[in-house]
Order: sequence, then C-alpha cells, then structure tokens
Amino acid sequence: MRRSDFDQLAEKLRNWGRWGAADQRGCLNHIGAETLKNAAAEVKDGKLFNLGLRFDRNGPQLGGGRFNPRVYVTDLFTPLNPAVPGVCYADDVIHMPLQSATQWDAFAHVHYDGQLYNGCSARECLTEKGAAKMGIEHLASPGILSRGLLLDIARLKGVDRLPLDYAITVDDLNAACARQGVKPAVGDILLVRTGHMQRFTVDGDRAAFMGLQPGLSPACAEWAHDHSLAAVAADNMAVEILDRESLASETPLAFHMLALRDMGLPLGEMFNLEALAADCAEDGRYTLMLSAPPLEVTNGFGSPVNPLALK
Amino acid sequence: MRRSDFDQLAEKLRNWGRWGAADQRGCLNHIGAETLKNAAAEVKDGKLFNLGLRFDRNGPQLGGGRFNPRVYVTDLFTPLNPAVPGVCYADDVIHMPLQSATQWDAFAHVHYDGQLYNGCSARECLTEKGAAKMGIEHLASPGILSRGLLLDIARLKGVDRLPLDYAITVDDLNAACARQGVKPAVGDILLVRTGHMQRFTVDGDRAAFMGLQPGLSPACAEWAHDHSLAAVAADNMAVEILDRESLASETPLAFHMLALRDMGLPLGEMFNLEALAADCAEDGRYTLMLSAPPLEVTNGFGSPVNPLALK
Amino acid sequence: MRRSDFDQLAEKLRNWGRWGAADQRGCLNHIGAETLKNAAAEVKDGKLFNLGLRFDRNGPQLGGGRFNPRVYVTDLFTPLNPAVPGVCYADDVIHMPLQSATQWDAFAHVHYDGQLYNGCSARECLTEKGAAKMGIEHLASPGILSRGLLLDIARLKGVDRLPLDYAITVDDLNAACARQGVKPAVGDILLVRTGHMQRFTVDGDRAAFMGLQPGLSPACAEWAHDHSLAAVAADNMAVEILDRESLASETPLAFHMLALRDMGLPLGEMFNLEALAADCAEDGRYTLMLSAPPLEVTNGFGSPVNPLALK
Amino acid sequence: MRRSDFDQLAEKLRNWGRWGAADQRGCLNHIGAETLKNAAAEVKDGKLFNLGLRFDRNGPQLGGGRFNPRVYVTDLFTPLNPAVPGVCYADDVIHMPLQSATQWDAFAHVHYDGQLYNGCSARECLTEKGAAKMGIEHLASPGILSRGLLLDIARLKGVDRLPLDYAITVDDLNAACARQGVKPAVGDILLVRTGHMQRFTVDGDRAAFMGLQPGLSPACAEWAHDHSLAAVAADNMAVEILDRESLASETPLAFHMLALRDMGLPLGEMFNLEALAADCAEDGRYTLMLSAPPLEVTNGFGSPVNPLALK
Repeated sequence: MRRSDFDQLAEKLRNWGRWGAADQRGCLNHIGAETLKNAAAEVKDGKLFNLGLRFDRNGPQLGGGRFNPRVYVTDLFTPLNPAVPGVCYADDVIHMPLQSATQWDAFAHVHYDGQLYNGCSARECLTEKGAAKMGIEHLASPGILSRGLLLDIARLKGVDRLPLDYAITVDDLNAACARQGVKPAVGDILLVRTGHMQRFTVDGDRAAFMGLQPGLSPACAEWAHDHSLAAVAADNMAVEILDRESLASETPLAFHMLALRDMGLPLGEMFNLEALAADCAEDGRYTLMLSAPPLEVTNGFGSPVNPLALK
Repeated sequence: MRRSDFDQLAEKLRNWGRWGAADQRGCLNHIGAETLKNAAAEVKDGKLFNLGLRFDRNGPQLGGGRFNPRVYVTDLFTPLNPAVPGVCYADDVIHMPLQSATQWDAFAHVHYDGQLYNGCSARECLTEKGAAKMGIEHLASPGILSRGLLLDIARLKGVDRLPLDYAITVDDLNAACARQGVKPAVGDILLVRTGHMQRFTVDGDRAAFMGLQPGLSPACAEWAHDHSLAAVAADNMAVEILDRESLASETPLAFHMLALRDMGLPLGEMFNLEALAADCAEDGRYTLMLSAPPLEVTNGFGSPVNPLALK
Repeated sequence: MRRSDFDQLAEKLRNWGRWGAADQRGCLNHIGAETLKNAAAEVKDGKLFNLGLRFDRNGPQLGGGRFNPRVYVTDLFTPLNPAVPGVCYADDVIHMPLQSATQWDAFAHVHYDGQLYNGCSARECLTEKGAAKMGIEHLASPGILSRGLLLDIARLKGVDRLPLDYAITVDDLNAACARQGVKPAVGDILLVRTGHMQRFTVDGDRAAFMGLQPGLSPACAEWAHDHSLAAVAADNMAVEILDRESLASETPLAFHMLALRDMGLPLGEMFNLEALAADCAEDGRYTLMLSAPPLEVTNGFGSPVNPLALK
Repeated sequence: MRRSDFDQLAEKLRNWGRWGAADQRGCLNHIGAETLKNAAAEVKDGKLFNLGLRFDRNGPQLGGGRFNPRVYVTDLFTPLNPAVPGVCYADDVIHMPLQSATQWDAFAHVHYDGQLYNGCSARECLTEKGAAKMGIEHLASPGILSRGLLLDIARLKGVDRLPLDYAITVDDLNAACARQGVKPAVGDILLVRTGHMQRFTVDGDRAAFMGLQPGLSPACAEWAHDHSLAAVAADNMAVEILDRESLASETPLAFHMLALRDMGLPLGEMFNLEALAADCAEDGRYTLMLSAPPLEVTNGFGSPVNPLALK
C-alpha cells in the first residue's frame, strides 16, 4: 500500500477523541447494554465452543523473538500440614510471551509516527515497564463480550484453506454476509475464518502457519468502521494478509496500524474457528455470543485468551 | 474435622465413575444445553462486570512459595520493516504462578491418600512435568460458562466483611437463598461473597488477605453436591475457611479435598465480587450468566482467569 | 555531595579515551601480564576461599524491583534411553535478576547526564534489549582476575560491623594499609570489609542488609584512581555508603557514578569477606589472588559471580 | 558397552565412602594445599584466557528441553532519586537452564539403579525442589580451582576437529601426554580438546554441535581414576562420545555415570579451548592454573561458569 493512500484511509477511519480524550477502549465502546442483550439472545441451542489453542511447548511459536509457553512445577506432593502425611498440593509457574498463542493485541502493541490510539505519545506511553497507557488492562475491564459474527471466507471460496497469498476483500466480506444470510450489527465482533489454522492444527507445520499467510486486506478496516464493529479476530496469526509485498512496503501491517492505532479496534489472533465454523455450516447460523476476556495484565501489550462461543 | 467424619462425608459425595472412568471434567458435566440456555436467559439488562484482580507486581501474593506476576518487555520501538522507520511494535513476556491471583484450581491441585479425582493415582498423574491427568486443560475445553448464583453472606450477616474466623454453614447458604429469593439450579456456579476481598482491595493488606480468613465450612460441600452445582468460587483466597484449627487438623483444607478430589468440583479463588454484589443488592437479582474460561494450559495445576458476569 | 564538587572530582578521575575510544574494559586495563604473575605469587599456603553468597530463595533481596533467584526442575528421573529404565538425568532452569546476590556491575548499570563510561550515549547504548555497549560481557572476557587487597575497615575500627551511617574515608584506607602492612599496587582489586554482611548472614536481617549501610565515601574513588586499582568490591550491597543524605542529594550513588561512569572501575557487591578476613587477621597477610569472572552474559547490566580468593 | 562390563568397571572406580559417608565433593577432595600452590606455580607468563561461551539467545541450545538464555530488562533510565533527573540505573533478569552453555554438572545430574554418588538414594535426594543432596552448591564452595592439564587430542591426530564418531581412548590420552611432554598430577583438572567446538563457533551449526559427537570413551574414566584427577572438562557438549551405539546401549552416557555417580568426578561441558590450545601449541606448555567456580546455586543440577585459564 502506498503511504499516501494509507494516510488518506487512516484519516477517514481515525476515532481519536470520539469517545473522549482519555478513552482507552476504542471500538469496545460500541458495545452497549442492548448489544449485550442481543448477544445473549443468540444463545438458542446451548452449544458451547472454545476457540483457543493450548498453551504449552508444542504451541505455534518458532522460538526466535517469541517462544512457546513453559510451565514449571514448583510444588508436588507438598503436605498441607507437615504433621499429616499424604494430604498434599501441587503448584506451578508459567513463563510465556503475552503474544504466544490465541490472544488479543492491546492498542499499545503497534504504532506509527510516534503516536498510539487516541493520539497518545509513543515516547511517553511505551516504556521498559510496559504500556503506561493503552495496555491490555483497559480491554480487560470489563472484558470483551458481545455478539460474534463468523464470516467463513474459506467456505465462501469453496476451499479448506485460503491460499497463502490471498487477501480478503470488502467484496468477500459482503459476499459472505449475503451467502450466510447475516448482517453485521453495531458492536459485533467479527470472526474471520481463513482456514489457515489447519496448517498448524492439522498439518503440524509451524513454519507455514507463522509465515506468509492469507488474511484481511487493509481496506477491510473501512468495512469494520462503517459497520461499527467492536473487534475483529481471525484464525491466522496476523488477522491481516502477510505477503512479501506488504511486509516490504511503506506500510507494513497496514491493517494492524489502522485497527489498533487509528480506530482503536482490538484484534484477536489465532482463534481456532474450525469446530465452530463446522457447526455454523450445519445449522446455518453464523451469529453467536462471544465471551473472550483478556487477562487484566497491567501495562501488558497483549493477553492470552480462551475465547468461548455460545450458540 | 475428625478424619473419620471427613471420610464418611467424602464417601457420600464422591463422584468417581459417575461420568465414566475416563472423566476429567467432574461437576462441569452438570452443565448441559439447557443450563447454557438458562444462563443466557439471565441476561436481562445488559450489565457486564469483570470479577478478576489485576495481574501485576501489586497482586495479593506475599512472595514466599507463590509470587506476583512479573511482565518483561522484550520489544519496544522495534520496526516492522527496518527500511521504514517509525512503524513499530512492542512485545512482552509474563512470568507468574498459575495460582497467583483470580484463578481456577485444576483437580490435580490437591489430593490425599495417593489418589486424585476419579481414582487417579497421584504417583502416576503428578510429575515434574505437571499433571499428566486432571490438568486445567480439561476444565478449559470447552471452558467454564453457566448460570452464576451469587450468595452474599456478608450482606446476610449485615457486615461488610465476615470476621476472620467465620465458617459459613449450610444454614447460612439456605438463609441467603431465602433472603435473596433464589434457588440453586442444576449446573449453577455458586459465587460466595464473604467481603474478605476488601481486606486486599480496600485496606491494601496483603498479609490479612492471604492469612486466616472466613469461608465455607466443609459441610457446604454436601450442599453443593445435593444441588448438583457445577463449580464454586469465592472472594477469598481459599474458598473455604482458613482457621488455625482446620489447618492443624487431620484434614487440612477439607473443603478443597472434598470438592477437587472427591466430587470433581472446580474451585475459583479470589473472585472480586464487590461491584457485582452491589448491583445485585440494588436490583434484587442474584442470578446471572458467568463466563470464566481458564486458559488451556496443558498439564497445569490451575489457571488465571478474568471472569465475566453478565446480567 | 554538591553537584559542583562532584563534577570537579569526576573530571579529575575521568578515564574516557585513556584506553582508546572503543575501550569497554576501563580499569581492568591496569591488569597486565606482570600483575597476573604477581597475583599468582601471592599463593603461598594453598588456602582457598569462596566469597559468594548462595543463589536461592533465601537470598538478600526484598522482592520489590529485584527478587531472589528461583530454580525450577524441568527433568527428574528422565530416562536417557527409554528402553533402559533407571538410567536417568535431571535438569533445571533458573530465573534471577543479574543483580540478585554476589555480583559485578557492568559499566552500563548506571549513568548520568546522558553518557556512560567512555562517553557512550545512553540513548544509543541502553535499550530494552540490554546494553548495546558497556555490557558485562566486556568485563567477562577474559574475566576478572588479579591480585586482591583486603582492607578490613571494621577491624581497623575495632568493631564487628561498622555503624550503619559510617562513611569510609581515604584516611581510613590509608590507616588500614599502614596497620595491615600493605601497599596497593597497580591493577589490584580492592576488597573492602565493613562487616555489614553479618547483618544478613548472622542476623538474617534482609531489610537491615539492603537498607541504609556503611561503605566508601565518594572521595575513595580518587584513592582508587591514584593507585590505579583495577576494580573495587565490598561486603555490603552498594560498595559505597548509603545514607539518607546522599540518597536525597543532587548526586545519589556518587561513588557508583564516579567508578562505573567516569573511571570505568568495575564494582563488586555483596562479596562475603568474613572467612577470608578472619584468615588474614590470623596470618597477617592481606594480599591474595582473586579470581572472580563474571558470566559472559551478552548485553547484561551485571552478572552473578562466585569469587575465589587463593592465598 | 555391555552392562556387565560396565558394572565391573564401575565397581573398580567407585569412590563411595572414600571421603566419608557425608562427602558431597568427590574427586575435588584430591585438591589439597599443595595442589593449589602447584596450580599457581604454573603461572609463568601472565597470560589469561576465558574458556566460556556467551550466554545469550544465540547459544548452542536447540530449544527443545533446554533453551538458550533470555535476558529481560527491568529498569532503564530509572532515576535513583526522582528529584534528580538524569542520574539513572538499569537492571535486568535472566531466565536460563542451568545446563545451557559452558557449565559444570552436579553429581545429582545423573544416576542409575536408584543411587547417586556416595550411595545417596535418588528417591530421597531428587525432588521437584531440586537436589536435596549432591547439588552444585557443594562443588561451588569453595569452588573449582586447580592445575589444569590440556590434552589436545585433535592436534595429536593432526586434525582441526575429531570426526563425529571418534571415541578417545586411554592410549590417546597417554600418547597426548607423551607428545606434549606432560604428566598428570594428583588433583589435576583434565581439559580435553576434540575440536568439536568449532562446529558451533566456526560453522555456526548448532545441530551438528549438539548431535552425535566425538569424546572420551568410558575407559577413560579409569585413567582419570588412576591419576587421581579432580575433574574433567571438554570442548564438546557431553565430554564423552555420543554415538548411536552408546545411546542405544544398555549403558547410555556411560562415562557420565561412571564419573558423576560412581567416582564423584565433576564434568565440565562446552569449554571453549580454541585460543588456549593455540597458545599451548605455540609455547609448548600445556599446564596452567584453572579457575572455574560454579555459582553456588542451592540444590542446582548444574551451573553456568566462565572458566579462566592462567599461564
């Protein structure tokens, strides 16, 4: 994407000041009481799905900058009362990147031109102690819960997985809505299925999963804006398309920048949508209640999450 | 509690084999499709509360065996494309006990007489690699979501916080139900408010919060059993009463043992119920939808959680 | 200390450029081949002492910014060949501040006025990835080994431990040399005994050990400079005096700043000199060979060390 | 190696009880005052070498069970006195396996038949809290310092690096002594150069370095025994030969077992001997003072080290 085109789009989508100069929740403000009630109204059959990957050494990370979680046992067969043998507890400790598997990005996770969402100064907000503003705790309280809208783009295209270089367009999103018979509502959380997750969960190919990948084109940010979505999550690593061209362009991770920095739109990554999508295809219902609260990690740049979908 | 009394009670409540010899989800099996629909039906006003503590250095841990979470920044102002200055991301890593703040216990967390829930051999299941069986991942998939029933025992007793040595009785639970006009239903998650949380959140007194504390008496396990509850959480550190007598007894943490080991009843600790309880007192509705999915940490003895209550 | 006095002293002691514009070893350059031979020549009786504290949970840290080391077992009874039971190994992992117990400070550990030792720009050298320059690896290769000169100031003053507010003066250093019959030589590593260590090792009083403490006055930096010392270590936490006045002054940790930033003089902290000092008092010999190599931690701000003294 | 042959050899070499039933230092007991004086007497030219690898993300570990060290910055530009801007410190934290790069094995690191060195019960000594006995702290106090004897087997064979399947024999050791004009003395630390280190430091090939590799044959343990060596270190990962045959045999890591478990002979791994060996070849002197103190990590199965050789 050309920087001039990007800047024009960014300006159009920018929500700075929209919810007050001190706002740190961005598009989550689209979720009002009515939205929450509508979300609950989607629960018709009592079917529950979790959309999270496991947190362990066999996770998707390749081990360079980010690594897979490590859990250490610190107590095992420790008696609660030394005088009573055989009554014991066990404890453990985890060491993990906040961005290691299924997770939400905080607004502070990316920026450009020295500013974060809502015009925060990157120099002031980003410190070696973490995100003094725009940290994940602001998305965690009261949490991320709303109506979820699954758009199954792989299914729309008649494939199990989109090709590695496929950039999802606004037309694709509209076509999926039409095909699925759904309409986005204010405050919806969009769940985008590319099928890319299978490269990890089925093929066991970490490098393929974490490498170049299909995903949303930058223009989809405008679609999210026009429909007043509260958040967007996908079943790939980056939500957006990762291709050689965009990474080498003047505007790398353009969708991330537009969403997190200009719009204040939370992004969910590595959501495993396979079982949910299969169910939606079967019953024809692509809307649901999504409960995906990040951990309230103070000043964190992200948080692991175990998202729940309830239909 | 005398060991012989304990054993008699344990035998009565024991659910081993009830959901099959391979079951690792225990009382969560009480949550069926109807339960989930009923949970959603509790959403009447669109009010959302998060019940989690923050995960940071100022958490409740005293720093002996368990410590408060530490977050380390690993990337800051790192350019996405070295050729494009000013377009940057930030990353971080967390190091924390899985039992550090608001959290669920896995069944593998405690045991006695060499056996875990469902008769698993402690020797075989508990290893320095974690819980080979009865780990938190089994409670995390598909997650913990059900109707929540708040019983505000502090309010029942007309105090902000129960005294440190107060053991909640079955009569208290029944009295609270009567006073609040609620009835427990199959699959409910019981939320017990003692007010003890205020000793940490209001007084800032970690030592008081983590020390001797009010909570459920062991007999309440039978109440949970009789009502087919799916899980129990409370606003103190241990769910149950911690007094000198019980810690020094033949049956330390008796409620934990009955719940986690005999019944397969998940326990949620350090749930912050203050705001929710205030709202319930105001509108008189003490039932809600509770979504509190543990992270799917393979072989983990517990998991941090950010529980959401939706009314 | 007044800032103007400090600046005058700093200018006098500043070694920037003395060993070349690219130098990152500072006063360790005083250690030449002759120094090393003289160090070995001090070995007359074959007596070996280690001057390190233990690295474990019972260390001196209070647990705020810095904490005591944690070691996690990752393998236990793991068979080397699954087909051969009973032939096993065990492994573990450590998590510790590089400044947790007995340790060396890297030059990058402190700075003022935007510059580190040898005029390095703090903005350029200090990043969230660590010390791009002046990291501990430069003191670790080839390591810190030289003649050690123990000055037992507590003994000089006839006390077990100097009072908490005692600032060691240049006169004290000279008096100790005279009393002990020693002369500092070029390249010596000065070991200063205050006795303060006993507040931790004997009294077990962490807070006293880590709080206000006796140590070198800033003027001692000039003594180190005049005698061309290679490094200075002490048995307290900060080498220098920590009193209310200096901490609240315009020039906090003045000795650190002069040593690490202006002189390039490595500082060793929490060296346990008790057994060595007792031996020196007995045999009257206060010079020895000191081998105290930091770990070669790339970009580290410090390193744990197990210093050896050989007489 | 056949188990029966192994057992015969093990019995011959076993030092259990030799230095008392409570001994936890094994062959380090060979280092007496005379040994230490002789070690110092080897210092003739004042040449200092460090034999350690760097501790950072680019270390030799492949990232499965063991991983390369990670260092996290926790303070950067933190003012010492908030009222005095610009006078700052920086701090960091390390997370690393105790066996990640250049390191010593504790006796507790391996065992067979349920017993460790000196007949300790593995069940009693090895816990999820670490090595209750035979931990690295016993080798760390007072530390490992003695005369070092470098045997350059690669040079003896006229190659830069021994072939991957080369098992060093007792004859090789004797031939190297003869060729180099040296004799092992009681309390010596043997440094074995295979050249294998180059596969990591020169080729940058981690997988080759950590895979099958040349090293000592089990019979060399008897040579170490007969010469009353205090410790053995080498420039490969395992000290001993790692070939398919031995790994699949009844006695995997036979040399480790004989050394650590039967003899109480500390093993040093991944010592970088390249520069030292080049110097020894040049001046013809293969004996030196070796100072290689492990960190005093309580209950640790090993320790990183920065070994110093002084000639």
